[in-house]
Amino acid sequence: MRMYDIIEKKRDGGELSESEIKWFVSGVSDGSLPDYQITALLMAIYLKGMSDAETAALTGAMAHSGNTLDLSRFKDLSADKHSTGGVGDKTTLVVAPIAACLGAKIAKMSGRGLGHTGGTVDKLEAIPGYRTSLSPDEFINTAEKHGICVIGADKSLDPADKKLYALRDVTATVGCIPLIVSSIMSKKLAGGAHNIVLDVKCGSGSFMKTAADARLLAEKMVTIGKTCGKNVSAVITNMDVPLGSAVGNWVEVREALQVLRGSREFPDLRKVCLTLAAELVSMSRGIDEDSAEKAVEDALDSGKAYEKFLEWISAQGGDISVFDDSSFCRAEYSMEVKSRRDGYISSCNTEGIGLCAMTLGAGRAAKDDVIDPTAGILIKKKRGDFVKQGETEAGLLTSRRETLEEACRRYCESRTVTDAPPEPEPLIYEKIKGR
Amino acid sequence: MRMYDIIEKKRDGGELSESEIKWFVSGVSDGSLPDYQITALLMAIYLKGMSDAETAALTGAMAHSGNTLDLSRFKDLSADKHSTGGVGDKTTLVVAPIAACLGAKIAKMSGRGLGHTGGTVDKLEAIPGYRTSLSPDEFINTAEKHGICVIGADKSLDPADKKLYALRDVTATVGCIPLIVSSIMSKKLAGGAHNIVLDVKCGSGSFMKTAADARLLAEKMVTIGKTCGKNVSAVITNMDVPLGSAVGNWVEVREALQVLRGSREFPDLRKVCLTLAAELVSMSRGIDEDSAEKAVEDALDSGKAYEKFLEWISAQGGDISVFDDSSFCRAEYSMEVKSRRDGYISSCNTEGIGLCAMTLGAGRAAKDDVIDPTAGILIKKKRGDFVKQGETEAGLLTSRRETLEEACRRYCESRTVTDAPPEPEPLIYEKIKGR
Repeated sequence: MRMYDIIEKKRDGGELSESEIKWFVSGVSDGSLPDYQITALLMAIYLKGMSDAETAALTGAMAHSGNTLDLSRFKDLSADKHSTGGVGDKTTLVVAPIAACLGAKIAKMSGRGLGHTGGTVDKLEAIPGYRTSLSPDEFINTAEKHGICVIGADKSLDPADKKLYALRDVTATVGCIPLIVSSIMSKKLAGGAHNIVLDVKCGSGSFMKTAADARLLAEKMVTIGKTCGKNVSAVITNMDVPLGSAVGNWVEVREALQVLRGSREFPDLRKVCLTLAAELVSMSRGIDEDSAEKAVEDALDSGKAYEKFLEWISAQGGDISVFDDSSFCRAEYSMEVKSRRDGYISSCNTEGIGLCAMTLGAGRAAKDDVIDPTAGILIKKKRGDFVKQGETEAGLLTSRRETLEEACRRYCESRTVTDAPPEPEPLIYEKIKGR
Repeated sequence: MRMYDIIEKKRDGGELSESEIKWFVSGVSDGSLPDYQITALLMAIYLKGMSDAETAALTGAMAHSGNTLDLSRFKDLSADKHSTGGVGDKTTLVVAPIAACLGAKIAKMSGRGLGHTGGTVDKLEAIPGYRTSLSPDEFINTAEKHGICVIGADKSLDPADKKLYALRDVTATVGCIPLIVSSIMSKKLAGGAHNIVLDVKCGSGSFMKTAADARLLAEKMVTIGKTCGKNVSAVITNMDVPLGSAVGNWVEVREALQVLRGSREFPDLRKVCLTLAAELVSMSRGIDEDSAEKAVEDALDSGKAYEKFLEWISAQGGDISVFDDSSFCRAEYSMEVKSRRDGYISSCNTEGIGLCAMTLGAGRAAKDDVIDPTAGILIKKKRGDFVKQGETEAGLLTSRRETLEEACRRYCESRTVTDAPPEPEPLIYEKIKGR
């Protein structure tokens, strides 16, 4: 086989065979294909597309490009959750303990944040002592014993994705449905879970800006997952505003804690967590949706999920005493963003709010940037809320005083205040089932 | 400026600005742009195209990516000829002396052969002593004194083209009109001639397989040349059969000599040479086409062009005594291809015949292969000719005996013999003027 012929075929809109795709992925993983041929093919795929069969073949080949996790000892109970990335998305911290205390086994690898989106691993690392790096045995054994183990991504899994993603990132070929699907789903397949719920974010803070795009992506991922023998559901959720009120690392852990302790202060976050958890429980326990919804609500409100959360964090070395210490991880500097006029918060640019948090130190502009766990935003007035002139819209937190001014400018640029309230938007657009 | 943004713009079908194109070409030439971004853009250009304005900007930027030749001392008399590449194409050896003895000044750089196509420099190097590498001063002075100087390509001219072509060659992005146009025309612009005739080959032995494709390419090159202030004409000529009867290096020099000495044995070669020469003379001397046609025919038939040829070859160190030595450069081995049946030679695959010559040693499969100047093919029966069973169709010549068998197989596969004669095809499809 020759890479030239594969590029030529895709350039002319042809359908690549499974063996051509396997050969390509193997050349990507072992480094035998030069980058300049890989990127030419990626651009041809971007512009000519891929059939479902090609996407499934690509996903499968990538999933097997490195090590894979064997979760067979958990039988049908193994469960995973994936978010396409948003701002203020701390759902894993709530969903995992709810699902685990209802019997699901969550042995999960999570990512770090980059750009405007946060990452679960960064949030967990804000908890002192929490170990995001475990040996394979520790990882599986912890999940077996406690129902949850969440660690950082293992570099030996899906090396083809790492290589391809790095090249897509610099050649304007990220935003291509078959490539997004194969990138996400290959990692999920390599991760070994049988039941997967996908939280597909939709709106200004996410990659998919419209409900139509989000639906297309969700449908493709569910189709591919099903083709590969998995139980997959997708929930399309609103990311036109940050989820909850906290954006950052420690502030998000604290907000998740409040939800786990039964708070109703963040109804959007609570609702999305319950929905995702119900999907996972319904799939992994094989029970109907209504029963699953009732069970997850009960797990949360009874305090069982909170207990499971403490058990999980302790099992991975986290110091749970800080959860009751209001002085822990306090930002050295803060600034209040005050409204310059009366009106309704409208047309929020959530990506801008994510970049504001990144500016404060909560995220990374480049891969090797160091996170400030104290940094973040506490949003007081969200989209649709009325605000008076001089009233506080948000608090900015950081240990890097010099960032406050730019962060404040970014925040103000990221929302408008208008006389009329904005049109309300759904929190959950749709569920797409693949069972 | 960021390469990412340029790739993204072209990916979405946008028109790149002149400054974006200049920035890109400068990054290609100075090595600051990574290959993987260049090839992603090349594929986006292949699939999304380029406007005439973009193609002109690309051509201009490439032409100025390295040194350029200053032929201003020749005023409007400087003339150049370019062929898009074919099999048996020895026209430069005939056209240059005809045009030069009518006053045109030809300071020309020529290429080497690769794959099925031959190169003028390889043919000239078959003449003992001929120097294809001269200093810039020697080059210009020889052209000034004798009206012709033909040397090998100077690596300091158009370095962007060398880089881009090498990447296109391995990413299936060669066959793209704006990229072909900019590659050819940037080299012609850097070469400095004011009058340029383009021999656009059309048919199975050339890159453009159909008359429509050849016309499109010719029109674009003429348009771009005009935009850049040059006199440009294109002649679309048949390459569905080899031009003339000889394919190789020394055998082609000998055939060109025969035409220069007045032979009518190769009417297709003679006609194409006269047509190209008339275009050059008409442009460089500013005379009408009919007068130019008469003048070139007279220059050839009077023997003046032959005298000019001898003067040129001698001026560049070539030993002209070998032209009368029938034992010079004789191939050590030969084989006759004999017809297995009666019939008409039809549907000739000229690329296959070029590859047959390459197999014998007349061309290169890879850049560093060494040419055998004695190797080649003497075609006795061309497309449309009737051949009897056992009659000789062609003679194969080589100094590498082991190549004969494969070459013979290639030759036989490259043509069919049928009961009915093939449809005749035009020798010259069309002329496209850009004055």
